[in-house]
Amino acid sequence: MDSWPAGTPSGADLHLDLTTGRARGLGLRAALEDALRGSVRDGRLAPGTRLPPSRSLAADLGIARNTVAEAYAQLTAEGWLTARQGSGTVVAERGAPAPVATPGLPQRAPAARYDFTPGRPDLGLFPRTAWLAAARRALAAAPNEALGYSDPRGRIELRRALADYLARVRGVRTDPERIVVCTGYTQAVGLLCRTLHERGVRRAAIEEYGLPQQQHLVETGGLTAVTLPLDASGARTDLLGPTGVGLVTLTPAHQFPTGVALHPARRAAAVEWARQSGGLVVEDDYDGELRYDRQPVGALQALDPELVAYVGTASKSLAPGLRLGWLVLPAELVEPVTRQKYLADGHSGVFEQLTMAEFITSGGLDRHVRRCRQHYRRRRDLLLTTLAERAPQVRVTGLAAGLHAVLQLPPGGLSERELLAQAGWLGLSVNAASGCRAAAAGPAEERPPALVIGYGTPPEHAFAGAVDALCRLLTL
Amino acid sequence: MDSWPAGTPSGADLHLDLTTGRARGLGLRAALEDALRGSVRDGRLAPGTRLPPSRSLAADLGIARNTVAEAYAQLTAEGWLTARQGSGTVVAERGAPAPVATPGLPQRAPAARYDFTPGRPDLGLFPRTAWLAAARRALAAAPNEALGYSDPRGRIELRRALADYLARVRGVRTDPERIVVCTGYTQAVGLLCRTLHERGVRRAAIEEYGLPQQQHLVETGGLTAVTLPLDASGARTDLLGPTGVGLVTLTPAHQFPTGVALHPARRAAAVEWARQSGGLVVEDDYDGELRYDRQPVGALQALDPELVAYVGTASKSLAPGLRLGWLVLPAELVEPVTRQKYLADGHSGVFEQLTMAEFITSGGLDRHVRRCRQHYRRRRDLLLTTLAERAPQVRVTGLAAGLHAVLQLPPGGLSERELLAQAGWLGLSVNAASGCRAAAAGPAEERPPALVIGYGTPPEHAFAGAVDALCRLLTL
Repeated sequence: MDSWPAGTPSGADLHLDLTTGRARGLGLRAALEDALRGSVRDGRLAPGTRLPPSRSLAADLGIARNTVAEAYAQLTAEGWLTARQGSGTVVAERGAPAPVATPGLPQRAPAARYDFTPGRPDLGLFPRTAWLAAARRALAAAPNEALGYSDPRGRIELRRALADYLARVRGVRTDPERIVVCTGYTQAVGLLCRTLHERGVRRAAIEEYGLPQQQHLVETGGLTAVTLPLDASGARTDLLGPTGVGLVTLTPAHQFPTGVALHPARRAAAVEWARQSGGLVVEDDYDGELRYDRQPVGALQALDPELVAYVGTASKSLAPGLRLGWLVLPAELVEPVTRQKYLADGHSGVFEQLTMAEFITSGGLDRHVRRCRQHYRRRRDLLLTTLAERAPQVRVTGLAAGLHAVLQLPPGGLSERELLAQAGWLGLSVNAASGCRAAAAGPAEERPPALVIGYGTPPEHAFAGAVDALCRLLTL
Repeated sequence: MDSWPAGTPSGADLHLDLTTGRARGLGLRAALEDALRGSVRDGRLAPGTRLPPSRSLAADLGIARNTVAEAYAQLTAEGWLTARQGSGTVVAERGAPAPVATPGLPQRAPAARYDFTPGRPDLGLFPRTAWLAAARRALAAAPNEALGYSDPRGRIELRRALADYLARVRGVRTDPERIVVCTGYTQAVGLLCRTLHERGVRRAAIEEYGLPQQQHLVETGGLTAVTLPLDASGARTDLLGPTGVGLVTLTPAHQFPTGVALHPARRAAAVEWARQSGGLVVEDDYDGELRYDRQPVGALQALDPELVAYVGTASKSLAPGLRLGWLVLPAELVEPVTRQKYLADGHSGVFEQLTMAEFITSGGLDRHVRRCRQHYRRRRDLLLTTLAERAPQVRVTGLAAGLHAVLQLPPGGLSERELLAQAGWLGLSVNAASGCRAAAAGPAEERPPALVIGYGTPPEHAFAGAVDALCRLLTL
């Protein structure tokens, strides 16, 4: 790497290395600009330094004068240099910018060898070939306008496919005009909270135990969270009346994490509360398609589509990375929620939407869900029989559906905190039930330890080993 | 379509039509459930109605008793029916839900025959084959974990590719750790405003003329908008000092809509303001790659990466439907903006991200942008020469870059309002400059009419006709 010493009548000593830029495929002028920028940036050319006239620098570098003059003009336009009438070109005055350094983002813990983190499907099941084929068909059929700015509610092709699918598989009552495609539950609950906040709602009820981030999501939407206790029939929706909330989020088909299906009386109570108070029920139907011992419990939304906003997702049935979800809305919320979606991100990506529409209408999703159900049922059965044999003191609940189970340990053994620490030594990642407790619920009563086991998460080759490590943990 | 009359000891007269469900491929039990749900829903089975014992209904329908019992159990679980000890199964008490009706969303105006709406690329240029090929390669190379919940900043593959690309093409100074992938400028400005709002910022400056929705976006992020006047050198960043804002959004490379490149002194003033006030400059680099008469003006961000948040997008260079954008952040904003992204939607879709990374690193994006530049330059030249010939009284500005031009009409002719009305009759969609004026800027001074012409928007086959219609409008 040579560098050209350049004659500098103003006394500065330019060392401009054009070879680096040239080696990166830049033209002469661009390479010169690059070198000049670098010199200003790292302080070799200090603010106020006068540059040689273009004619001299061109001669020194053995390039055309015009090339130098154009490079000066470009860097002047970008603010690196200043052209002063009568005194030529000088390096612009400005404080030296801080160096670009990698900020210290909290690093993730290294992946555990055996990962039972709940809420994740087995990503090895993702139907890559079928999905790509659907993408190809969808893109081939899409008109050009489909690639542009689009209806904030999402593409009509997907909303039509979803209306049929959700009616058939989840008993949802809808038409395509009431569906807003979004990126998943996180965005859906944000849109709903912001919509209701604009109408004066300030408080939302969430389940006492749920997604670890559920309270944050509600609060980001501008609402204060209060919690609803859980019992063996699910969330205590019968207690909603005096809370004064304007919105309640529920997981009716399969409570997260307890796994309970909301009792019919509690379903009725939720709808009744909404009718009398003017409130909104948000139904988080995150794994409604995955049920093993009986057919899926239909959507709560069907009890009254004007009082329940249904939220579904492809995160469990296909892959979280897709960021595809959907809202089915009461009629009067369609317009304001659509406006919030528009302000949040315009609309969801159309390529995934068109592919998903094709995947649903071609029957690909049904085939895939059927395959997933068999796969997870096998895992569940292996987990159950192994635990019954090797850790019979553990009570396993919430297994009729979805991708996770709750293991309740007898009192008097290790605490949840001790279990998590020991799990680390076994290369095992599990969640404690207390980690799903909403902060707004305050400290829990003293209760025996429980673990939430996401048995969808381990890759297939590691599943048996993961169950073995889990049994070792439970018998410590 | 037959229906079975069913014996009903309680006096109700069930008309259960199983054929509809059967024709849709449902099994017997599902078809029965469907028919029962329908009857409850539309009121044929009123709340409180006692259903026949499963044995009688089974006999009436000629199906197994167990099938009926299971259907009753399912509908009880879903809340349609209630099982009463000793008195059999009755229809649950609840008000009749309102019918599902299509809400009256404001419909879009029918598409104009000739569409010059600014801010849109020619979607016919989208490289469908190359994009699909990149998607195939990207998905084949992706590990399973890439399909799961991901780093809120986006996939490392894309952040690496962007860091190289933006340095090379836009002179952005960054590394992959400072990039947050998002869905475009709309989301980016929301994330930034919410982040600064948490730090106590309450006011943001926007350009007097800009994206029609720019003020809404800032306000959705919780900030109050004040406006910065524009002149021939671009935004009056020299006036930022007394405004007391904590953030300013700028379009330095190509002001929207005027098309001016921000003058070097104004670039310096923006950075100087940020340095002295602790404020943040947001650089909206929406069409930085598309410049015709000279090489692109480098990113303002390079003047000081710790004071400028750079926002780029694939909406103009590829397609808005992708919903792909990126933030390059000052180090100390990476963590809080990442947190806002996590709360907004978890992370952006990984499929588009991986495809875009592959598209960039394989050189596909460079090839595509080169092709676009030639295409738009041809259009621009045709527009310019045709206008010079047929409407020489019109002054055309802002044409050195991007996808739009401003046509300034001499005073004394039609007003902007009259021009838009006449355009409608000609099947022409154009924007008036006044439509880009921020509400916060108050009413504009009286000035001659100007139109903002997005010459990327018409499909290729309609372009010559669109220019012709435009000339007819301008010579009315």
